[in-house]
Amino acid sequence: MKVPGRSGCPINLTLEVLGDRWSLIVLRDMMFGNRRFFRELLTQSEEGIASNVLADRLKRLVEHGLISRSGDPTHKQKARYSLTEMGIALVPLFAQMGAWGRRFLPVSEKLSIRAELLEKGGPEMWEAFEHELRALHLGEPTPQRSVLSELTEAYAQHPKVGI
Amino acid sequence: MKVPGRSGCPINLTLEVLGDRWSLIVLRDMMFGNRRFFRELLTQSEEGIASNVLADRLKRLVEHGLISRSGDPTHKQKARYSLTEMGIALVPLFAQMGAWGRRFLPVSEKLSIRAELLEKGGPEMWEAFEHELRALHLGEPTPQRSVLSELTEAYAQHPKVGI
Repeated sequence: MKVPGRSGCPINLTLEVLGDRWSLIVLRDMMFGNRRFFRELLTQSEEGIASNVLADRLKRLVEHGLISRSGDPTHKQKARYSLTEMGIALVPLFAQMGAWGRRFLPVSEKLSIRAELLEKGGPEMWEAFEHELRALHLGEPTPQRSVLSELTEAYAQHPKVGI
Repeated sequence: MKVPGRSGCPINLTLEVLGDRWSLIVLRDMMFGNRRFFRELLTQSEEGIASNVLADRLKRLVEHGLISRSGDPTHKQKARYSLTEMGIALVPLFAQMGAWGRRFLPVSEKLSIRAELLEKGGPEMWEAFEHELRALHLGEPTPQRSVLSELTEAYAQHPKVGI
């Protein structure tokens, strides 16, 4: 009899690491919202993540190497989280998820603007975004193009009506 | 206070539908292994999915519109499952997941061959694969190119050594 979960299939292993809704929500908020502290991730959560769930998922994401943590290890609230290269490399996956969601699910108009821009921008925009994330999270030189500003401005400019 | 899970963000909604490891494993096996019956999905599962989990996920996938079910509704074992357009449209997402897994996780060589081909084939190959899946699952005309054969042959030709 096969032991559940012990296959080396790339899709299976990816799901073992990412196959949890809240882990990906936390990564999304770090990536698109540049939220780097526990408090920010908790209070600005669109989906209302619970404090214990957030603490657990941050721990798991650090263990799996998707994010890193700096700062005083005894003060949960003061730690700053950064995406690693492994986390940053999820940009195309998030872009595809957003595109698929927009096509098939009852998404809200305002919350879809960024996904739409990212889909239309294609691989070129995703790469520019990865460059920018390396600057923000890994201390690499800041590139000229800021995809994050483009996404954030488009989101901010959308009227609140019709959410 | 926000109600958990009630956001219309495309990524969040996608995760609400797909954010469960076993659902995506079942879709993967239907898509890449052309497994269409309960028994096939159960006994050929590389990850050893449990019977009750499989039954539950098939039901959920039908409810969410990712697969459809035909055949005698009173005989679980005889029902045949097909991907819908919504399920077929996940091809690019699986391709990205495979690519990411190959890059960052300890994948097995043999089980990675298909992911590697799919990654190298790019959007053109993914589209050809979607055409083929529409023929297999939705009864559309069979296209000339069979991506499934390309993937399956490459997998079969790989020596078992070094798994």
